Amino acid sequence: MTIMKMIIAIVQDKDSNVLSNEFIEADIRATKLSSTGGFLRSGNTTFLIGIEDERIEEVMKLIEKTSHTRGQFMTPQVNMDVSMDASAAYPVEVQVGGATVFVLPIEQFHQF
Amino acid sequence: MTIMKMIIAIVQDKDSNVLSNEFIEADIRATKLSSTGGFLRSGNTTFLIGIEDERIEEVMKLIEKTSHTRGQFMTPQVNMDVSMDASAAYPVEVQVGGATVFVLPIEQFHQF
Amino acid sequence: MTIMKMIIAIVQDKDSNVLSNEFIEADIRATKLSSTGGFLRSGNTTFLIGIEDERIEEVMKLIEKTSHTRGQFMTPQVNMDVSMDASAAYPVEVQVGGATVFVLPIEQFHQF
Ligand code: NI
Ligand code: NI
Ligand code: NI
Repeated sequence: MTIMKMIIAIVQDKDSNVLSNEFIEADIRATKLSSTGGFLRSGNTTFLIGIEDERIEEVMKLIEKTSHTRGQFMTPQVNMDVSMDASAAYPVEVQVGGATVFVLPIEQFHQF
Repeated sequence: MTIMKMIIAIVQDKDSNVLSNEFIEADIRATKLSSTGGFLRSGNTTFLIGIEDERIEEVMKLIEKTSHTRGQFMTPQVNMDVSMDASAAYPVEVQVGGATVFVLPIEQFHQF
Repeated sequence: MTIMKMIIAIVQDKDSNVLSNEFIEADIRATKLSSTGGFLRSGNTTFLIGIEDERIEEVMKLIEKTSHTRGQFMTPQVNMDVSMDASAAYPVEVQVGGATVFVLPIEQFHQF
Protein backbone atom coordinates (compact mmCIF):
# COMPACT_ATOMS: atom_id res chain seq x y z
CA MET A 1 0.00 0.00 0.00
CA THR A 2 1.10 3.50 -0.76
CA ILE A 3 1.64 5.69 2.26
CA MET A 4 0.12 9.11 1.73
CA LYS A 5 0.84 12.36 3.50
CA MET A 6 -0.85 15.74 3.52
CA ILE A 7 1.29 18.73 2.70
CA ILE A 8 0.00 22.14 3.78
CA ALA A 9 2.02 24.88 2.12
CA ILE A 10 1.53 28.60 2.66
CA VAL A 11 3.05 30.72 -0.09
CA GLN A 12 2.79 34.32 -1.15
CA ASP A 13 0.04 35.22 -3.59
CA LYS A 14 2.62 36.43 -6.09
CA ASP A 15 4.14 32.95 -6.28
CA SER A 16 0.96 30.92 -6.16
CA ASN A 17 0.08 30.86 -9.87
CA VAL A 18 3.54 29.74 -10.88
CA LEU A 19 3.45 27.06 -8.22
CA SER A 20 -0.01 25.90 -9.33
CA ASN A 21 1.31 25.45 -12.83
CA GLU A 22 4.32 23.53 -11.57
CA PHE A 23 2.00 21.20 -9.70
CA ILE A 24 -0.17 20.66 -12.77
CA GLU A 25 2.85 19.86 -14.93
CA ALA A 26 4.07 17.39 -12.33
CA ASP A 27 0.62 15.80 -12.08
CA ILE A 28 0.26 16.79 -8.43
CA ARG A 29 -3.26 17.65 -7.31
CA ALA A 30 -3.32 20.70 -5.11
CA THR A 31 -6.30 22.48 -3.63
CA LYS A 32 -5.89 26.22 -3.12
CA LEU A 33 -7.33 28.26 -0.28
CA SER A 34 -7.13 32.01 -0.09
CA SER A 35 -5.49 33.07 3.16
CA THR A 36 -3.98 36.08 4.87
CA GLY A 37 -1.68 36.76 7.67
CA GLY A 38 1.47 35.87 9.25
CA PHE A 39 3.01 38.99 10.65
CA LEU A 40 2.53 41.21 7.65
CA ARG A 41 -1.09 40.44 6.98
CA SER A 42 -0.33 40.26 3.30
CA GLY A 43 -2.29 37.95 1.02
CA ASN A 44 -1.10 34.43 0.66
CA THR A 45 -2.32 31.11 -0.60
CA THR A 46 -2.63 27.87 1.32
CA PHE A 47 -2.17 24.71 -0.73
CA LEU A 48 -3.50 21.33 0.44
CA ILE A 49 -1.81 18.42 -1.26
CA GLY A 50 -2.28 14.70 -0.81
CA ILE A 51 0.90 13.00 -1.92
CA GLU A 52 2.68 9.67 -1.85
CA ASP A 53 5.44 9.54 0.73
CA GLU A 54 8.17 9.11 -1.87
CA ARG A 55 7.15 12.28 -3.73
CA ILE A 56 7.42 14.66 -0.74
CA GLU A 57 10.93 15.71 -1.69
CA GLU A 58 9.78 16.56 -5.20
CA VAL A 59 6.97 18.76 -3.85
CA MET A 60 9.42 20.50 -1.50
CA LYS A 61 11.76 21.28 -4.39
CA LEU A 62 8.94 22.80 -6.43
CA ILE A 63 7.88 24.98 -3.51
CA GLU A 64 11.43 26.05 -2.71
CA LYS A 65 12.17 26.88 -6.34
CA THR A 66 9.02 28.94 -6.70
CA SER A 67 8.89 30.84 -3.42
CA HIS A 68 10.75 34.14 -3.43
CA THR A 69 11.78 36.30 -0.57
CA ARG A 70 10.90 39.90 -1.31
CA GLY A 71 11.37 43.26 0.29
CA GLN A 72 8.07 44.76 1.38
CA PHE A 73 7.27 48.04 3.08
CA MET A 74 5.11 47.90 6.13
CA THR A 75 4.02 50.40 8.73
CA PRO A 76 4.79 48.94 12.14
CA GLN A 77 1.71 48.31 14.16
CA VAL A 78 1.06 50.76 16.94
CA ASN A 79 0.34 49.03 20.21
CA MET A 80 -1.53 50.96 22.85
CA ASP A 81 0.27 49.22 25.63
CA VAL A 82 3.85 50.11 24.68
CA SER A 83 5.36 53.54 24.58
CA MET A 84 5.88 54.64 21.01
CA ASP A 85 9.05 56.02 19.67
CA ALA A 86 9.10 58.37 16.69
CA SER A 87 10.14 55.75 14.18
CA ALA A 88 6.91 53.83 14.61
CA ALA A 89 5.10 56.15 12.22
CA TYR A 90 7.30 55.37 9.19
CA PRO A 91 7.07 52.38 6.90
CA VAL A 92 10.08 50.11 7.10
CA GLU A 93 11.27 47.59 4.58
CA VAL A 94 11.23 43.99 5.74
CA GLN A 95 12.03 40.76 3.96
CA VAL A 96 8.82 38.87 3.36
CA GLY A 97 8.60 35.58 2.14
CA GLY A 98 9.24 32.42 1.20
CA ALA A 99 6.95 29.63 2.12
CA THR A 100 5.92 27.72 5.22
CA VAL A 101 5.35 24.02 4.72
CA PHE A 102 3.94 21.33 6.98
CA VAL A 103 3.88 17.60 6.31
CA LEU A 104 1.16 15.77 8.22
CA PRO A 105 0.50 12.08 8.66
CA ILE A 106 -2.86 10.82 7.44
CA GLU A 107 -4.73 7.72 8.44
CA GLN A 108 -7.07 7.38 5.51
CA PHE A 109 -7.23 8.77 2.01
CA HIS A 110 -10.29 8.32 -0.20
CA GLN A 111 -11.38 9.48 -3.60
CA PHE A 112 -15.01 9.08 -4.57
CA MET B 1 -12.04 8.97 26.37
CA THR B 2 -13.38 9.50 22.90
CA ILE B 3 -10.77 9.41 20.17
CA MET B 4 -11.33 12.24 17.72
CA LYS B 5 -10.10 12.59 14.15
CA MET B 6 -10.07 15.44 11.71
CA ILE B 7 -11.64 14.84 8.34
CA ILE B 8 -10.68 17.17 5.51
CA ALA B 9 -13.00 16.70 2.55
CA ILE B 10 -12.76 18.54 -0.74
CA VAL B 11 -15.98 18.44 -2.74
CA GLN B 12 -17.33 20.28 -5.75
CA ASP B 13 -19.21 23.51 -5.11
CA LYS B 14 -22.32 22.04 -6.73
CA ASP B 15 -22.47 19.34 -4.08
CA SER B 16 -21.46 21.38 -1.08
CA ASN B 17 -24.84 22.73 -0.01
CA VAL B 18 -26.47 19.33 -0.10
CA LEU B 19 -23.59 17.92 1.91
CA SER B 20 -23.79 20.76 4.44
CA ASN B 21 -27.43 19.95 5.00
CA GLU B 22 -26.67 16.26 5.41
CA PHE B 23 -24.11 17.14 8.06
CA ILE B 24 -26.57 19.37 9.90
CA GLU B 25 -29.23 16.66 9.89
CA ALA B 26 -26.70 14.17 11.24
CA ASP B 27 -25.57 16.61 13.91
CA ILE B 28 -22.04 16.77 12.49
CA ARG B 29 -20.27 20.12 12.79
CA ALA B 30 -18.43 21.02 9.63
CA THR B 31 -16.53 24.19 8.84
CA LYS B 32 -16.50 25.21 5.19
CA LEU B 33 -13.66 26.88 3.35
CA SER B 34 -13.89 28.14 -0.19
CA SER B 35 -11.21 26.57 -2.33
CA THR B 36 -10.18 26.13 -5.93
CA GLY B 37 -7.99 23.90 -7.91
CA GLY B 38 -7.09 20.43 -8.57
CA PHE B 39 -6.39 20.06 -12.22
CA LEU B 40 -9.41 21.84 -13.55
CA ARG B 41 -9.22 24.93 -11.40
CA SER B 42 -12.92 24.70 -10.81
CA GLY B 43 -14.47 25.94 -7.60
CA ASN B 44 -14.73 23.54 -4.74
CA THR B 45 -15.35 23.53 -1.03
CA THR B 46 -13.09 22.21 1.69
CA PHE B 47 -14.84 20.88 4.77
CA LEU B 48 -13.07 20.57 8.13
CA ILE B 49 -14.78 18.14 10.47
CA GLY B 50 -13.87 17.03 13.95
CA ILE B 51 -15.45 13.65 14.54
CA GLU B 52 -15.41 10.72 16.89
CA ASP B 53 -13.49 7.76 15.54
CA GLU B 54 -16.56 5.55 15.41
CA ARG B 55 -18.47 8.01 13.21
CA ILE B 56 -15.89 8.23 10.40
CA GLU B 57 -17.67 5.63 8.31
CA GLU B 58 -20.92 7.56 8.61
CA VAL B 59 -19.24 10.75 7.40
CA MET B 60 -17.67 8.88 4.48
CA LYS B 61 -21.04 7.51 3.43
CA LEU B 62 -22.58 10.99 3.45
CA ILE B 63 -19.74 12.35 1.32
CA GLU B 64 -19.84 9.44 -1.11
CA LYS B 65 -23.61 9.67 -1.47
CA THR B 66 -23.50 13.41 -2.14
CA SER B 67 -20.50 13.75 -4.42
CA HIS B 68 -21.24 13.35 -8.10
CA THR B 69 -18.90 12.83 -10.96
CA ARG B 70 -19.77 15.18 -13.80
CA GLY B 71 -18.64 15.82 -17.33
CA GLN B 72 -17.05 19.24 -17.68
CA PHE B 73 -15.55 20.99 -20.68
CA MET B 74 -12.12 22.41 -20.30
CA THR B 75 -9.62 23.99 -22.65
CA PRO B 76 -6.32 22.23 -22.17
CA GLN B 77 -3.68 24.49 -20.80
CA VAL B 78 -1.07 25.65 -23.26
CA ASN B 79 2.43 25.16 -21.94
CA MET B 80 5.15 27.30 -23.43
CA ASP B 81 7.70 24.56 -23.05
CA VAL B 82 5.98 21.81 -25.01
CA SER B 83 5.18 21.74 -28.69
CA MET B 84 1.47 22.19 -29.26
CA ASP B 85 -0.56 19.98 -31.45
CA ALA B 86 -3.68 21.24 -33.13
CA SER B 87 -6.11 19.67 -30.66
CA ALA B 88 -4.84 21.83 -27.82
CA ALA B 89 -7.02 24.72 -28.89
CA TYR B 90 -10.32 22.89 -28.43
CA PRO B 91 -12.23 22.26 -25.23
CA VAL B 92 -12.45 18.63 -24.29
CA GLU B 93 -14.90 16.94 -21.99
CA VAL B 94 -13.42 15.38 -18.90
CA GLN B 95 -14.99 13.68 -15.92
CA VAL B 96 -14.70 15.93 -12.90
CA GLY B 97 -15.50 15.08 -9.55
CA GLY B 98 -16.27 13.38 -6.78
CA ALA B 99 -14.57 14.16 -3.57
CA THR B 100 -11.13 13.81 -2.02
CA VAL B 101 -11.11 12.95 1.65
CA PHE B 102 -8.33 12.79 4.23
CA VAL B 103 -8.60 11.47 7.77
CA LEU B 104 -5.96 12.91 10.09
CA PRO B 105 -5.00 11.97 13.63
CA ILE B 106 -5.34 14.69 16.23
CA GLU B 107 -3.63 14.99 19.57
CA GLN B 108 -5.92 17.43 21.27
CA PHE B 109 -9.43 18.69 20.68
CA HIS B 110 -10.87 21.63 22.61
CA GLN B 111 -14.05 23.61 22.57
CA PHE B 112 -14.17 26.87 24.43
CA MET C 1 15.25 19.21 17.98
CA THR C 2 12.11 21.19 18.57
CA ILE C 3 8.90 19.25 18.17
CA MET C 4 6.35 21.26 16.24
CA LYS C 5 2.59 20.87 16.08
CA MET C 6 -0.09 22.36 13.92
CA ILE C 7 -2.96 24.08 15.64
CA ILE C 8 -6.15 24.59 13.66
CA ALA C 9 -8.47 26.97 15.48
CA ILE C 10 -11.92 28.01 14.29
CA VAL C 11 -13.15 31.20 15.93
CA GLN C 12 -15.96 33.61 15.30
CA ASP C 13 -15.28 36.49 12.91
CA LYS C 14 -16.04 38.96 15.70
CA ASP C 15 -13.14 37.63 17.74
CA SER C 16 -10.65 37.05 14.96
CA ASN C 17 -9.04 40.47 14.79
CA VAL C 18 -8.40 40.61 18.50
CA LEU C 19 -6.93 37.12 18.37
CA SER C 20 -4.74 38.04 15.39
CA ASN C 21 -3.32 40.91 17.37
CA GLU C 22 -2.70 38.70 20.39
CA PHE C 23 -0.77 36.30 18.17
CA ILE C 24 1.31 39.11 16.70
CA GLU C 25 2.16 40.46 20.14
CA ALA C 26 3.19 36.98 21.26
CA ASP C 27 5.27 36.47 18.11
CA ILE C 28 3.13 33.58 16.94
CA ARG C 29 2.70 33.26 13.20
CA ALA C 30 -0.86 32.48 12.26
CA THR C 31 -2.38 32.13 8.82
CA LYS C 32 -6.04 33.09 8.52
CA LEU C 33 -8.62 31.46 6.29
CA SER C 34 -12.12 32.75 5.85
CA SER C 35 -14.62 30.04 6.68
CA THR C 36 -18.31 29.51 7.35
CA GLY C 37 -20.47 26.98 8.97
CA GLY C 38 -20.93 24.88 11.87
CA PHE C 39 -24.60 24.69 12.61
CA LEU C 40 -25.41 28.35 12.34
CA ARG C 41 -23.66 29.03 9.07
CA SER C 42 -22.29 32.21 10.51
CA GLY C 43 -18.95 33.59 9.39
CA ASN C 44 -15.88 32.41 11.18
CA THR C 45 -12.15 32.38 10.75
CA THR C 46 -9.86 29.37 10.64
CA PHE C 47 -6.34 29.93 11.95
CA LEU C 48 -3.44 27.68 10.98
CA ILE C 49 -0.54 27.89 13.40
CA GLY C 50 2.75 26.06 13.45
CA ILE C 51 4.00 26.05 17.02
CA GLU C 52 6.59 24.47 19.25
CA ASP C 53 5.18 21.79 21.50
CA GLU C 54 5.93 23.72 24.68
CA ARG C 55 3.95 26.78 23.53
CA ILE C 56 0.66 24.97 22.87
CA GLU C 57 -0.70 25.88 26.28
CA GLU C 58 0.08 29.55 25.65
CA VAL C 59 -1.80 29.48 22.33
CA MET C 60 -4.76 27.77 24.00
CA LYS C 61 -4.92 30.45 26.67
CA LEU C 62 -4.94 33.22 24.05
CA ILE C 63 -7.76 31.53 22.16
CA GLU C 64 -9.79 30.85 25.29
CA LYS C 65 -9.34 34.42 26.52
CA THR C 66 -10.41 35.90 23.20
CA SER C 67 -13.31 33.67 22.18
CA HIS C 68 -16.68 34.76 23.47
CA THR C 69 -19.91 32.90 23.60
CA ARG C 70 -22.72 35.05 22.29
CA GLY C 71 -26.46 34.84 21.91
CA GLN C 72 -27.51 34.79 18.28
CA PHE C 73 -30.92 34.57 16.67
CA MET C 74 -31.44 31.94 14.05
CA THR C 75 -34.39 30.66 12.11
CA PRO C 76 -34.46 26.90 12.44
CA GLN C 77 -33.96 25.16 9.15
CA VAL C 78 -37.02 23.67 7.57
CA ASN C 79 -36.45 20.10 6.51
CA MET C 80 -38.75 18.67 3.86
CA ASP C 81 -38.63 15.22 5.33
CA VAL C 82 -39.83 16.01 8.85
CA SER C 83 -43.23 17.26 9.86
CA MET C 84 -43.04 20.89 10.88
CA ASP C 85 -44.48 22.27 14.01
CA ALA C 86 -45.56 25.86 14.32
CA SER C 87 -42.48 27.06 16.18
CA ALA C 88 -40.22 26.31 13.26
CA ALA C 89 -41.08 29.59 11.56
CA TYR C 90 -39.75 31.80 14.38
CA PRO C 91 -36.17 32.78 15.08
CA VAL C 92 -34.83 31.41 18.33
CA GLU C 93 -31.89 32.61 20.34
CA VAL C 94 -29.05 30.17 20.68
CA GLN C 95 -25.65 30.47 22.28
CA VAL C 96 -23.02 30.64 19.60
CA GLY C 97 -19.53 30.53 20.21
CA GLY C 98 -16.48 30.07 21.42
CA ALA C 99 -13.81 28.36 19.49
CA THR C 100 -13.02 24.86 18.25
CA VAL C 101 -9.37 23.92 18.38
CA PHE C 102 -7.45 20.94 17.03
CA VAL C 103 -3.83 20.08 17.70
CA LEU C 104 -2.30 17.89 15.01
CA PRO C 105 1.03 16.09 14.87
CA ILE C 106 3.33 17.06 12.04
CA GLU C 107 6.19 15.09 10.53
CA GLN C 108 8.09 17.88 8.85
CA PHE C 109 8.15 21.64 9.09
CA HIS C 110 10.04 23.79 6.59
CA GLN C 111 10.49 27.46 5.96
CA PHE C 112 11.98 28.55 2.68
NI1 NI D 1 11.88 32.24 -9.45
NI1 NI E 1 -27.25 12.63 -5.63
NI1 NI F 1 -12.93 39.48 25.84
